[in-house]
Amino acid sequence: MVAGIVAEIIAAGSELLTPFRLDSNSLYLTAELNALGVACRRKQVVGDRQEDLAGAMREALGRADLVFVTGGLGPTDDDVTRPAAAAATGAALVAEAGLAESLRRRFAARGWAMPERNLRQAERLDGAEILPNPNGSAPGQWLPLQRAALCLLPGPPRELRPMWAAEVAPRVQRWCAARGLAPVPLAARQLTVAGRPESAVDEIAAPIYGRYPEVETTILAASPGEIELHLRAPAPRSARLEALLAELAAALAPAVFTTSGEPLEAVVGARLRARGQTLAVAESCTGGLLAGRVTAVAGASDYFPGGVVSYGNEVKARELGVRRETLEAFGAVSAECAAEMAAGLRRRWGVDWALAITGIAGPGGGSAEKPVGTVFIALAGPETWRAEPEVQRCRLSGERDRIRRWSTTLALEALRQALGDGPAKPAR
Amino acid sequence: MVAGIVAEIIAAGSELLTPFRLDSNSLYLTAELNALGVACRRKQVVGDRQEDLAGAMREALGRADLVFVTGGLGPTDDDVTRPAAAAATGAALVAEAGLAESLRRRFAARGWAMPERNLRQAERLDGAEILPNPNGSAPGQWLPLQRAALCLLPGPPRELRPMWAAEVAPRVQRWCAARGLAPVPLAARQLTVAGRPESAVDEIAAPIYGRYPEVETTILAASPGEIELHLRAPAPRSARLEALLAELAAALAPAVFTTSGEPLEAVVGARLRARGQTLAVAESCTGGLLAGRVTAVAGASDYFPGGVVSYGNEVKARELGVRRETLEAFGAVSAECAAEMAAGLRRRWGVDWALAITGIAGPGGGSAEKPVGTVFIALAGPETWRAEPEVQRCRLSGERDRIRRWSTTLALEALRQALGDGPAKPAR
Repeated sequence: MVAGIVAEIIAAGSELLTPFRLDSNSLYLTAELNALGVACRRKQVVGDRQEDLAGAMREALGRADLVFVTGGLGPTDDDVTRPAAAAATGAALVAEAGLAESLRRRFAARGWAMPERNLRQAERLDGAEILPNPNGSAPGQWLPLQRAALCLLPGPPRELRPMWAAEVAPRVQRWCAARGLAPVPLAARQLTVAGRPESAVDEIAAPIYGRYPEVETTILAASPGEIELHLRAPAPRSARLEALLAELAAALAPAVFTTSGEPLEAVVGARLRARGQTLAVAESCTGGLLAGRVTAVAGASDYFPGGVVSYGNEVKARELGVRRETLEAFGAVSAECAAEMAAGLRRRWGVDWALAITGIAGPGGGSAEKPVGTVFIALAGPETWRAEPEVQRCRLSGERDRIRRWSTTLALEALRQALGDGPAKPAR
Repeated sequence: MVAGIVAEIIAAGSELLTPFRLDSNSLYLTAELNALGVACRRKQVVGDRQEDLAGAMREALGRADLVFVTGGLGPTDDDVTRPAAAAATGAALVAEAGLAESLRRRFAARGWAMPERNLRQAERLDGAEILPNPNGSAPGQWLPLQRAALCLLPGPPRELRPMWAAEVAPRVQRWCAARGLAPVPLAARQLTVAGRPESAVDEIAAPIYGRYPEVETTILAASPGEIELHLRAPAPRSARLEALLAELAAALAPAVFTTSGEPLEAVVGARLRARGQTLAVAESCTGGLLAGRVTAVAGASDYFPGGVVSYGNEVKARELGVRRETLEAFGAVSAECAAEMAAGLRRRWGVDWALAITGIAGPGGGSAEKPVGTVFIALAGPETWRAEPEVQRCRLSGERDRIRRWSTTLALEALRQALGDGPAKPAR
C-alpha cells in the first residue's frame, strides 16, 4: 500500500483464539479499506478480557489513523468491547434512551420481552455516533478522537457488511476529507494461470513485475494447479497496472485462463456455450469432483448433461464400455483405460466432448511403476479435432484431497486449451 | 483456557495483510500449545516493516511467557524477522559458520550455487538455539530471555509443523519445567450433529453445558447442515469432560453422528463396510458433490461402485429409467422424480442402497411453488428395509454452494439413520 492513511483491525472474542476459528472479517474490511485508499498495517485477535482488549485498542490508537474493532458487542458478560473502548479512550458510557427503545421494539416485533442485560447494547461511548444495525441487536459506534477514529462493529458478517456499506465507508471518506487527507483509492486486477507450478510462474513473472515497483504484486497458490497473481496500485497509476497485466498475460499465455477472477469451470462453460457444444465426464479417482466443479456454474445444464462416476471397474466396463482386456492388460489406472473411458462416454452419450480421469489419489494403492499421484486424463472430442482421445499422464504430489482437486483442474484446462485459442481476453 | 502459561503468536508478512490470505498457522500452533497446557492469549499479523515487527515482539514479550513469530525468515529484503527480533530483544545477530556451511551444502545438493543473500539465513540471535529445518532453507530459532522465550518459525506449514514436533514442543515442555511451571494439558473432545440448525442444537445443549463451567464449550457451524460442539477442559477434569460429552450425546441423539471428529461420509462408509453393503448415487442439483464426498474416504471402492450425474432430463430417463410421464407431470424437481431416480439406479446397478438428489440450487430456476432451495432427497434400499424409496422434501436457504453442500449432508444423514441404530458409540 502506498497511501499514507493507516488502519488497524482488532477482532474481539476468545472463540477466535481457539484452534477452530479464523477471523475472516478482516479480509472483507481490508478489501473495503484498500478500495478507499486506506492501508491495513496490523490486525490482531484479542480474547474477552477487558483489560487485554482495552490495551490493544490503546496501542492501536497510538499508531493508526483508524481503528476497527469487530465483535464483542452482544449482551452477555463475554461482550466487553464497549467498556474496553471506554477504558481505552476515556470516553464515558452513556445510556441512550432512543437505542433502548428501538431494542425493545425489536424484541417486541418478535413477540419477546427484552432481557434486562440487553440494555448494555444501548450504551453509547460519549462523543460517538451510533451506527444502526438493521440485521441484529448490536449497533455499531463511530468515535472520532483527537488523532484517530475508533469504530466498533458487530462480529457476524451479515451484520457487519451492510453496516460497513451504509454507515462506515461514508464516514471514513468524510473523516479523511475533513482532515485534509485525500486517500488514494487502490485499483486491483488479477490473472490466474492453470497447470504450472508457482515457482515456474514466478520465474517468468518476477522479472516483469520487478520493473513495475509502483504495482504491488502478490502470488497466491489459490488451489492445486491454479496460481493467482494479484496486482494492486494507486488508481492514478492504473495505466501502469494495465500495462503490467498485459505484459504478464502475454508472457504466461496460453496458461492464463482469466484476467477477471472467473473460475476455470466458468471459462470452460462459457466457451462450450458459445460453441453450442456439450460435455460429459467420466471419473474414477476424482469420484464426482469434476462434475461438481462443472455444475458449480449456474446454467451448466445448457452444455452439461452429466456424467458417470465409475469408481468400480465393473462400472467402467458396463457404463462406459471399457474393454475387460484393457482392464486386465493395463489396469484401471492407465492411459488405455482413460482413453476408452472418454471415447466410450462420448460415443454412448452423444456429446461433443468427454473428459475422463483415472488415477491413484492415495494414500494407499501406489506401486513403484504407478506411485500415488499417478493420474491419467483423457479428452475425447469431435473427429474434426482429433481422431483419438488425447491422454496426459500426470505425476501429482500431496495428499488425497489435493491430488483429486488438482486432477480436476488439469482436466478442465485440457478442455479449455482444446476449445480455445490463446488466453481469455482481458475483460473489464 | 485455565492454565497460567500464556503465549502470543505473531505472523510476519505483508501478504497476510492483503484481502487474499489468512494466517492459518496460528490455528495449528494454538492446538499444539493448548495440548501442552499453554493458552494463546493474543495473535496478530504484522507487515514486513522492521520497526512494526520489532514493536509487536517487544510488546508481546512484555505480556506473555512464550512468543512465537512465524514467517519472515527467508533470504530476501522483505524478510525482517531476524533483525526485528534482534532490535526487540537487544540480542546481537552473529554469523554462524556451521549454518552457512549447511545452507551451502543444501544448495550444492541441488546443483546450485548459493546466492550471497542467503547468508542472512545463517545469522543467529546471540543466545538462541538453532532449530534445524529439514524441509526448507530457513532454520528456526529459540531464544530464552529473562522472563519469556522467543521462538522464530518458518512460515510454510510444511516446514513449520515438523519443526514444531521435533524441536519446539520438547523445548516448551523443558522451559516450563525448568521454571517450575507445570502447565496443565488440555483434554479435548468433540461431537458433531447433522441436519439440525445451530440454534436448535444450542437450545438443547446450552442448559447442559451451562452446568459444566469447568469445560469450555464452543459451538461451530462447521459446514451447512453440520454443527460441531468442541469441549475442552484441563486434563485433571477429564471425567467431567466425558460426563458432559455423554450427556450431550444422549440429549442430541440420534442426530450425533460422531464423537471423534470423523466426517459423515466416513461414518456412513464404515457402516456400509461393516454390513457388506453397497451404495450408488444419482445426482442432479448436487452434480457430483455427493459422490465426491463418498469418495473422499480412502478405500470407498469397497462399498461404492459409483454413480450417475444426471444433470439433464434425458440422462435421468436414459441412465436411471425415470419415466417421461413423471418428468412431464411433476417436473425433474419433484418427490416422484427423486424416487424414480433412486429406485431406477438401485435396480439397474444392483446395489443395496441408492441415494438420489434433485433440486433447485439457484440462483435462478425457482418458482412460487418450488422456490430456490427446494431439494428432494430419495433413498432406495433393500426390500426388507422399505418397499418404496423414502423421500424427503427440504427447503434450504443460502447461496448455490451452500444449498448443494447442505443437500449432500442431508442425503448422507438419511442413509446413516437408515443404516444405523442410534448415535455412533463414543470412540477413542
